Amino acid sequence: MPKSIQAAELMDHLATIAGDLNRVESWIQAQLQPEDPRLAPLLEHAARFRGKRLRAAQVLLVGQACERITQEHVAVAGIIELIHAATLIHDDLLDEAQKRRGLDCLHVEWGSHSSVLLGDWIYARAFLRSTEMDDRTCSRVLAEATAAVCRGEIHQNLTRTDFALAEADYLAQIDGKTAALYEAGGRLGAYYAGATDELQSACARHGLLAGRAFQIVDDVLDLVGVEQRVRKSLGTDWERGKLTLPVIRLRDRLPSGARARLAALFRDGVGRAELLQGEFGPALRESAEECRSEAASWLAESARALAPLPDNDARRALLELTRFLGTREH
Amino acid sequence: MPKSIQAAELMDHLATIAGDLNRVESWIQAQLQPEDPRLAPLLEHAARFRGKRLRAAQVLLVGQACERITQEHVAVAGIIELIHAATLIHDDLLDEAQKRRGLDCLHVEWGSHSSVLLGDWIYARAFLRSTEMDDRTCSRVLAEATAAVCRGEIHQNLTRTDFALAEADYLAQIDGKTAALYEAGGRLGAYYAGATDELQSACARHGLLAGRAFQIVDDVLDLVGVEQRVRKSLGTDWERGKLTLPVIRLRDRLPSGARARLAALFRDGVGRAELLQGEFGPALRESAEECRSEAASWLAESARALAPLPDNDARRALLELTRFLGTREH
Repeated sequence: MPKSIQAAELMDHLATIAGDLNRVESWIQAQLQPEDPRLAPLLEHAARFRGKRLRAAQVLLVGQACERITQEHVAVAGIIELIHAATLIHDDLLDEAQKRRGLDCLHVEWGSHSSVLLGDWIYARAFLRSTEMDDRTCSRVLAEATAAVCRGEIHQNLTRTDFALAEADYLAQIDGKTAALYEAGGRLGAYYAGATDELQSACARHGLLAGRAFQIVDDVLDLVGVEQRVRKSLGTDWERGKLTLPVIRLRDRLPSGARARLAALFRDGVGRAELLQGEFGPALRESAEECRSEAASWLAESARALAPLPDNDARRALLELTRFLGTREH
Repeated sequence: MPKSIQAAELMDHLATIAGDLNRVESWIQAQLQPEDPRLAPLLEHAARFRGKRLRAAQVLLVGQACERITQEHVAVAGIIELIHAATLIHDDLLDEAQKRRGLDCLHVEWGSHSSVLLGDWIYARAFLRSTEMDDRTCSRVLAEATAAVCRGEIHQNLTRTDFALAEADYLAQIDGKTAALYEAGGRLGAYYAGATDELQSACARHGLLAGRAFQIVDDVLDLVGVEQRVRKSLGTDWERGKLTLPVIRLRDRLPSGARARLAALFRDGVGRAELLQGEFGPALRESAEECRSEAASWLAESARALAPLPDNDARRALLELTRFLGTREH
């Protein structure tokens, strides 16, 4: 399995696009300027959740790997980050999350009305900016990706508490809710660099598979991670009735009696700590390791997808970025 | 004040576009077909809230008044109705509404997760369809209008319980949350008929002012309407701390002692029935009548905005449509 890399090490790899990342950041902050002064405190709060801008970094590195970064890459990267920000605002509200990146979630300070409506407004702003680009590819690809994100989230929500969720359904959910936006970022990063259709599809596939690996690792950490290291509340998937890959894999190989006991724990909403200390703890940790290997396989396949690209520093940095996404230990 | 017209009478005026309205309806229902069978029951529920399709009728009549209805008018009308549907799904959730058009609201049956996410999905689908049109005008105008709708809603939410809300702020709120989409419908209806910039602006202004009149009448009915005739719960604005024009107008002419007593009733969340039976009942009814006159003035101005259009049956039907919107007694 590939060695995980640290955020600081990743930053070294991103040095080559540091200037462009700053331009994306300024672009995003400019979008969150209120046209109406009454909205200012709300938007200031939203603007403080900066995150790591991994999606922006992906778009820029893909552009650079395809040997051209344009002003359009800055806008595409910013639009994708805005769409991602809108989904987080709605997710945090629905998940009743309290903190994000050490700050109170938007709905905690401003209530559910403002959170739903501000998310909607950010979506609309993102689409509006996409319509101002030279052609419609950005609008089309991102509207499709956003619909896929929502479909994945709805699907996940409708199957909540379903202990029989098939692995294929789980994969469809994460491909929608997480991988679709990385897929779109890969495609658009290549497209706006003037790359061929073949390269666009290669970068899209790289994004899709890396995003899938990323979400699997996220789900593994949510189940068996160490809270102090991951620095967020864990066990929320299991406790909220979301079945994820490590549990699905374990379920599918348990004999029927044990499977029924695991189902009962799931149905009763037993806490993560209790689950891991109980009968299924060792097997779940083993299943989680297997899922990490699975994520590593997707990651390796995502790396192979980039083979048609020129062998340059940006491509190597892109591989480091996705290795960071797909191997995080926290 | 212009005489109000009944829904049945309105339908006669719309006979000329009945075929196109059916095409819009089929178009909308096709958008709400699930790509994933698990979403089917949720989308079927959403598809049942058909409403009167007044926004679609506006787009088609504007096109016809400008002497050309194209396939693009059907799509624009459908996209606007989808955006409107998404806003209603989010509004009903946030307002904790129970029924819409006699059906359980979506969140009542499917919960808040599904409502937020389905609204987001419908927005994304609407934008996606707009990117498939021959040019970007539809995408751009509707992304702008959607941002304005959200801004109006956020503004209203942030000023909730503010008894000092200025009349100009109230107008800015309703111009966003309601009139912006009619403004966009007017502009796009004319644009896709190949009308001049002057005619596009005329139709946009007509939509804006008619939408404003519509919302003022809606707010008047919410305060002083007769529940059995309006056939929905009334008093929700006042009881939820939303200040609307009839209350603003009354507040601004009360002497300070009476104004403080009205402010106390507002702050204490006194019910609509009690409010209307109390000290301020007669003055509120009077203020409501004054606001109806105000709406009628905006309506007259909206009609004047259409002066540059050819004098044809469609223009007359459009005026009837907006008269319906701006003079409803229930």
